[in-house]
Amino acid sequence: MRQASETITIETGGKGFVEFTDRLCEFVAASGIDTGLLTAFCRHTSASLLITENAAGAVKRDLAAWLERVAPEGPDYEHDCEGPDDMPAHLKQVLTGTTLSIPVARGAPALGTWQGVFLAEHRAAPHRREIALHLLGE
Amino acid sequence: MRQASETITIETGGKGFVEFTDRLCEFVAASGIDTGLLTAFCRHTSASLLITENAAGAVKRDLAAWLERVAPEGPDYEHDCEGPDDMPAHLKQVLTGTTLSIPVARGAPALGTWQGVFLAEHRAAPHRREIALHLLGE
Amino acid sequence: MRQASETITIETGGKGFVEFTDRLCEFVAASGIDTGLLTAFCRHTSASLLITENAAGAVKRDLAAWLERVAPEGPDYEHDCEGPDDMPAHLKQVLTGTTLSIPVARGAPALGTWQGVFLAEHRAAPHRREIALHLLGE
Repeated sequence: MRQASETITIETGGKGFVEFTDRLCEFVAASGIDTGLLTAFCRHTSASLLITENAAGAVKRDLAAWLERVAPEGPDYEHDCEGPDDMPAHLKQVLTGTTLSIPVARGAPALGTWQGVFLAEHRAAPHRREIALHLLGE
Repeated sequence: MRQASETITIETGGKGFVEFTDRLCEFVAASGIDTGLLTAFCRHTSASLLITENAAGAVKRDLAAWLERVAPEGPDYEHDCEGPDDMPAHLKQVLTGTTLSIPVARGAPALGTWQGVFLAEHRAAPHRREIALHLLGE
Repeated sequence: MRQASETITIETGGKGFVEFTDRLCEFVAASGIDTGLLTAFCRHTSASLLITENAAGAVKRDLAAWLERVAPEGPDYEHDCEGPDDMPAHLKQVLTGTTLSIPVARGAPALGTWQGVFLAEHRAAPHRREIALHLLGE
């Protein structure tokens, strides 16, 4: 049994979803681990990780619009140091989550056919985001 | 230290929650592992995993009704290839989550007294769903 | 490769967020494990775990107010055995999540600068909550 760790960086262009499934697959392949557990952890409170369909672009547009409806900008927030998108970004991170654990089988994450792994940027401005990856297995 | 892996299948009857706590307990018991970490991962983007109270049936009915309010069907979605329940199903999966990690102690998942583990089916039609299980420990 | 386990208890004062990042750091440090995977699991269905900004107190107030808007008390619930805060507490737990996995590097959880780990109490009355911790690594 052994482990591998790496921190990857993703440059976002402001609000939106950046798929990084390929980088997870490359990390697992490079480790030489066949069977195990992969964890991805987003080191931020205004960006998050999620899994959604990676085929239809409309899914991402609908998901973005829904997040705006559930956690809208507006006059309701006490915390707005960094602008009107600041507090809604924290809410969207809590809603969608910070960490993903995915079993690894036959040298790859055991994702379903339509599952893609995405970094969700919730701030309006571009940001540089770090994701800590960890893999344990053999 | 060693690991065990298995993919289980659950046939759903359309929208609703299917408890599979027993199958997790059986998987852990069959592995012979006493202490470790159990992960369950749902390989779909319109079904999800969640933990909720497993005693009162009303909790599941209220939870189902709330999910309909938070992510309702309606004219707001661009993505509707597979019908009006398609995009709301993706939203409910993002909201509730795809993966659960549960410590294992004394040969069983360390769940609280009232905690049940459920597959949440978000599509109207019955589906066959796969959950990848992974256990690491000794 | 080895593991460490512990169940910690947090006394809550009713609805609110109790940070326990320090206790996670102490648990990791006491284990002597340098690199690995830390998991925290909340053993309840009306309390949850989440990561959010730990600097500005306003973030927690806005987060609490938002949770009340998304899962409000009201006449809509069938399940109200333990009062009007009962079912909303279950909804907030599902929304925010029960388990967190965090990579460990250089003997500490690989949290970002502004990330704090919180127990979220969703019931109005004070409760005694158990969190199962698990660490695997070397």
